[in-house]
Order: sequence, then C-alpha cells, then structure tokens
Amino acid sequence: MTSHDRAAARALDAADPLARFRARFVLGDEPRVYLDGNSLGRLPKETIERLDSTLRKWDADLVGAWAEWIDLPLRVGDLLANAALGGAAGEVVMADSTTVNLYKLAAAALAAREGAIVVDPDEFPTDRYVLEGLARAHDRELRRLGSEPVEGPTAETVRAACAAGPTALVCLSHVSYRSGALCDLRAITAAAHDAHALVLWDVSHSAGVVPVELEEAGADLAVGCSYKYLSGGPGSVAFLYVRRGLQQELRSPVQGWFGQRDQFLMGPSYEPADGVTRYLAGTPPILDLTAAEVGIRLVAEAGIDAIRAKSLSLTTLAIELHDAWLAPLGFSLGTPREPERRGGHVALRHPDAWRIRCALIERASVVPDFRLPDSIRFGFPPLYTNHADVWEAFARLRRLVKKGEHLAFSEALARVT
Amino acid sequence: MTSHDRAAARALDAADPLARFRARFVLGDEPRVYLDGNSLGRLPKETIERLDSTLRKWDADLVGAWAEWIDLPLRVGDLLANAALGGAAGEVVMADSTTVNLYKLAAAALAAREGAIVVDPDEFPTDRYVLEGLARAHDRELRRLGSEPVEGPTAETVRAACAAGPTALVCLSHVSYRSGALCDLRAITAAAHDAHALVLWDVSHSAGVVPVELEEAGADLAVGCSYKYLSGGPGSVAFLYVRRGLQQELRSPVQGWFGQRDQFLMGPSYEPADGVTRYLAGTPPILDLTAAEVGIRLVAEAGIDAIRAKSLSLTTLAIELHDAWLAPLGFSLGTPREPERRGGHVALRHPDAWRIRCALIERASVVPDFRLPDSIRFGFPPLYTNHADVWEAFARLRRLVKKGEHLAFSEALARVT
Repeated sequence: MTSHDRAAARALDAADPLARFRARFVLGDEPRVYLDGNSLGRLPKETIERLDSTLRKWDADLVGAWAEWIDLPLRVGDLLANAALGGAAGEVVMADSTTVNLYKLAAAALAAREGAIVVDPDEFPTDRYVLEGLARAHDRELRRLGSEPVEGPTAETVRAACAAGPTALVCLSHVSYRSGALCDLRAITAAAHDAHALVLWDVSHSAGVVPVELEEAGADLAVGCSYKYLSGGPGSVAFLYVRRGLQQELRSPVQGWFGQRDQFLMGPSYEPADGVTRYLAGTPPILDLTAAEVGIRLVAEAGIDAIRAKSLSLTTLAIELHDAWLAPLGFSLGTPREPERRGGHVALRHPDAWRIRCALIERASVVPDFRLPDSIRFGFPPLYTNHADVWEAFARLRRLVKKGEHLAFSEALARVT
Repeated sequence: MTSHDRAAARALDAADPLARFRARFVLGDEPRVYLDGNSLGRLPKETIERLDSTLRKWDADLVGAWAEWIDLPLRVGDLLANAALGGAAGEVVMADSTTVNLYKLAAAALAAREGAIVVDPDEFPTDRYVLEGLARAHDRELRRLGSEPVEGPTAETVRAACAAGPTALVCLSHVSYRSGALCDLRAITAAAHDAHALVLWDVSHSAGVVPVELEEAGADLAVGCSYKYLSGGPGSVAFLYVRRGLQQELRSPVQGWFGQRDQFLMGPSYEPADGVTRYLAGTPPILDLTAAEVGIRLVAEAGIDAIRAKSLSLTTLAIELHDAWLAPLGFSLGTPREPERRGGHVALRHPDAWRIRCALIERASVVPDFRLPDSIRFGFPPLYTNHADVWEAFARLRRLVKKGEHLAFSEALARVT
C-alpha cells in the first residue's frame, strides 16, 4: 500500500474474503472503534441463541441434560484443537481458568522432570506468579530469559538459558501480551527438547488468530483462554493441551472427580483416567462451554489460515499508518516489523501513552488497551475488524495527539483492566 | 401428621409461607416430579433476564464492563456469606470449582500446619481424591474417620481420629452427599481445634438449605458449589470461605493474578492481596457469576431460617410416608431420623435401588438420584418443591414397587450423573 487514504483501506475491505463474518457479531452502526478484542472479544450473535437453548435444556431435561453436557469439555476441546491449535482429537480439553491450567500442567511437569523453570521476565503476570509459587514449593530455580522487550524470546536465548543448568520446564507465551511478538514455536520447542526440558506454551494471544501447530512443533503442553480471539465471553472457560505421548506420564496435582477413571463408580481411591481427561478437575461450566463453542466454531468456519492472512493485512496497515502519521508525533513501534514475528496485535510506544489512551477512549471513541510502562496496544481480531477500522482509529489518534487533546488528562494511572 | 392422604400434604402447602417462590422458577404444569435439585437446581426465571442483561452489557461496554464485573466474585461472595453461610463481608469469594477451591484451601492449610489429614471414608469422591493427592504430595498421613455410614461423622469420632497423632486438617462435608446426615458444625470444629487442627468444611449440600453459621462455629475454611440449592446452573462457579483471622496467615498455592496485590500494576513478583481476595486465581467467569447471583438472591429473599423450616417439613413428610408405605416393601431409611441430624435430602435404601431408580424415571416421571451401593436419593429444595410433590412421588414409588415394575429393568449400572 502506498496511498494512506481511506479509499485504499476500503478497497482492502472490498477484497476481504472474511468480510461476511463481521455480520455474525453484535456490533451497532456506532462511531466507536473497538480495538481491544484481544482483551475481551466481541459477542457473536449466535451466542445469544445458543445460551437460550442451553437454558431451555437446563429447564427441560434438568439433571438428565448432563448425559449430553458431560462430554462438552472434550468435544469443544477437539473442535479447538482442529480449528486453531494444530492438535489432534483427544489432546485438548476445555477446563478451569488459564491460571489454574498453567498451575496444573507446570506442576505436573515439575513432578516428572528435575531442574529449573525457565521463564521470560516479560511473560504475562499470572504465568510468572504461578511459576514463582511452584518454584518455591518445588524448590526449583526460576531462571529468567535474557530477552529483548520488543523482539521477545528466541531459540538462541532459550538455548542459552537452558545451558545454564538442568532445566525441567520452559514456559513462554506464543505471542507476547505486550509487544505482540510471535515466538518461533518449533525452534524454541526444539531448543528446549535438546536440553531435555518440557515446554509449556501459553497461547492465549495466538489461539484463533495465528495458526498454533502444537503437534507439528512437538510442543509438550499448552494453555490458553477463550475470551480473546475465540470470543467465548468474559472469563469464559480456558483450555489445555497435553501432547498425546505425554498424557499417561504426567498427572495433574488437582485430583478431581472429572479426571477420575470410572468417575461415577465413585471408587475408594483416585486413579487418573486415560488421555487428556485426567487433566480435568471439577464440574465443567456449561454456560461458558456453550459460549466458547460458538466462538470456536466461527474460527473453524473462517479457517485459521484465512484469519492469519487478514490479520497480517490489518497489522501491516497499522504499521504503515504508524510510520507515516504517528512516528513524527513521537510514537515508536513496540512490535516486531517482520510479519512472521508478529501476532494479531500491535503496540505503539509513547512517553505519554497513558494520557493518550484515556483521551482516545473519551474524546475519540477508539478503545485500545494500555500496558505498562508506555504501550498502547491495538488488537485487530480479523473476524469483525476491517481495514477501515484501522484507518479510522489511527486517523483519530493522529488528530488527537496533533491537537494535544491528551494533555488535558491526568498522568495518574487509574486501575486498568 | 397422622393422615397420609394427599389432602393433608395439600394443607401443608396451603400454609407454606414460601409457596410464592415456586413461581419464580421455570417449571411447567408437567407430570414430572423433580427431586434431584440437590444435584442440579432448577432454573430461576430471573436468570434468563439477567443473562440477557449481561450479554447486552458485554456488547455495549465491551472491555469497559470489567469496571463493574471485576468485583463480582467478592460482591456475590458477600451476598452468599450473609444469606446462607453465616460469614461476614470479606470472608467469602466466588471462584473456580469446588474441587479447585478444596485443593487451594487444603494445600494452604497443609503449608501452615504439621500433621495428618483427617477425612471421612464416605466423603464425596472429589474431596477424597484431592486430599489423597495432597497427602501424597506433602507426605502426610491420610487418616480415615471411623464413621457410621448413615449417621456420619460426630465430634466423638473426630476427637478419636485427632487423638491418633498430630493433625493438620480435618476435612468433612457439612451434609453427607449420600445419607444426608448433618454434622454438628460447632462441636466437630471445636474437637478439631482442641487437637490444634484446622477444619475445612464442604458445604455443597447445605449451602442454601441449612443455615451454615461458619463464624459462630469458629470454622476455619469452607468450600461449596452454587449449582445445587443455590440454583446457579450447571457447573456454575463455586465459592470458598476463609475465616478472617486466618486470611493473612495462609496462602493459596495457585498464585494467580486475581489474587495479586495491585493486580494491574503487573509487578515483577507475586505479593498476595489482603483478605479473601488472595484466594482468587484466574479471570472470573461472568456468565456464571450472573447466574449464581440470581439464585443466591432468591435464598436471601426467602431467608435461610424459613427455608430450613420448610425443608424439615418436607423431609419429615418423606420419612413418614417411607415408614407408612415403603418400609413394608423392603425399603429402609438411609438418613438420620432426628430433624437436627438431617440436611435437605433423604436417602432410601433398597436392595433393588438401581432398578427402582430407573423405573421411577421412565415409568413414573419421578426424578431422584442414585448413589452406590443401594441408595435412592430424594432432594427437596424448598423454594420450588412442595409437600404435594413429596406425596405424589412417594405414592408413585409405592405403586411401582408394589407392581414390581422395576423388575423389567436391567440390574447393570449405567453411567450415572
């Protein structure tokens, strides 16, 4: 793209093979441009109907409805594995929160392998906190990668960290929540395996927007949430992946009845079920599973490769507009430039990022996210974001900063979600 | 009650101060009698509206809705503490599943106290399994109570178990899932405290039907689910209670970002928040919290003492009808006779219990639960179950067994939920 006018963005939308998916979401003809779907994805229209069906089933079949519901964690997990994670049937299950799943799988890995935990200092906070607690409980070293903040972890930095001593587990985000840097899943997994470590990927920021290809990379473990690009709704049920060859070797530390062999015999002692089922814990949340399934089916229907192609087109436009319009205003790109090193969102850095974020929301009806210390994060979920949205948001951003409208806002950080 | 005719049951319903609550639930004018609300509670009408509001809020406010949602785990927890658990504000939080909450609190207790875990061999399976895993991980003895299967744990059996050696934790159900026996919360808590042990109560089968009075009993810890008497929906979010005086001493093993002090500063290392917040882990499920809140508000509105009074009236009728009609057909009571020793459900034992349960559902449109080895479990949630339901269900049961209709059913156990 050479021209930066609105017509050029509209032309890209006119040629978009996924354009029809925008109408599958509830979004009014509003001035607001929502670019935080990588924090909370939009509401699919079908979710409303499907939740209504689930309520009617609850009413009509009562406890008998469990005959159908009980396999939902596995059935929806299979859908997700196939649609977005590059896993096989029986390798993914919907369960708990990302935090609890990370805890279960990291603890399982530590029980099976000696050595340190390797983690990126820029890893998403809940992941760092969980690993810090497990390191203390299991008396393991928590070894931090020496990553560059924008470029993120590489096979080289992982190899170097693993070389520092025996390593049990490498735990990283596939796409960095802050910078949007995309890790080389295959190369980093191979580097960790060379050091006899297991690898646990947090794919919260890639599931549904970047093909994850866990099996092809030989990845051992993964967790992620369903409420970003998968549009499962606020706090909806998370998922976990365990490579088939590892499923019988590891055990969840949380020995719940949904992970028990012959669960309803309610036998005297715990014996983990075969397969990925053993990583379930308590009773699965059916409303959440209903909503998550709708979003996952939309991704499956659109196809993850088409989604990735559109995502790259959207982030490329954003970077071009940044370079042309925003860099002269003091912004710098907080995301890798190379398409193959980017996930679905773009971070712009600015010394006044917090005030600009506030002004964008209140004066310009553009909703981005903010991440400490100085990043405004723009997410572009391809199923309902178009090029005109990117153009409009960045045009408003340019106008606002040129006029200095953000200077009227307080520098004090409010609570940010 | 001396007469066992239908008119006597109807007279009790006519005098029922909670009768108006039945219309607050979705239930058709159907022949089915549902007596398994202690497995999955019925759907409140308001849940449909409230979920619709939450979906509209998701659509309208998108990520900004978190400003209101973020405190829901505490706000709904406070409601529940006050309505049904005898806890103060800031002692209860909605989170995760019962299984995961039990894991978190039992692990926290074991990190703070030396000694064995005391558990009832008849404890609900997921609780036993979780404790078995924790006992192995923490290298603790798992010491089993010598309880009588119908009467359940008593202060004497707990005292005897604690006397066998140092005890870190006593973990019991307030109401037994199988027999419906109600523990003496205060006496057992005192017995455990005399042995310097902490007590963790699973109140899944008492929350919303029996006043729990955790604070008055000096109870340390509790967990429970919202999908039984609290009508929160299938697999809805569970809750946990930590006595205020203990909150700062213990730590959750799952160091999640929702339990972190100054969560959105996303600081470099974990520092648990003050109060019960520190026992949260991942992002809270907003659809589930919406549904759970509706059910909890209904309990608050009806009042737990009025609910308990009606519950005792319903279970008394069930026991009288058992004695008059069913004992002569080979049934025996699997629940304590004394009102103060019973929760909200009644178990009938019969050598042919499994076949009778199948026939009841398929031939008589009565839905009970079945629990190995020989119990048919009838639950009577007082907000929507009336005395005529009890009479009708037991009349159909008597007719069916008298005619031997159950003999046509297979003895082989199918999967039971």
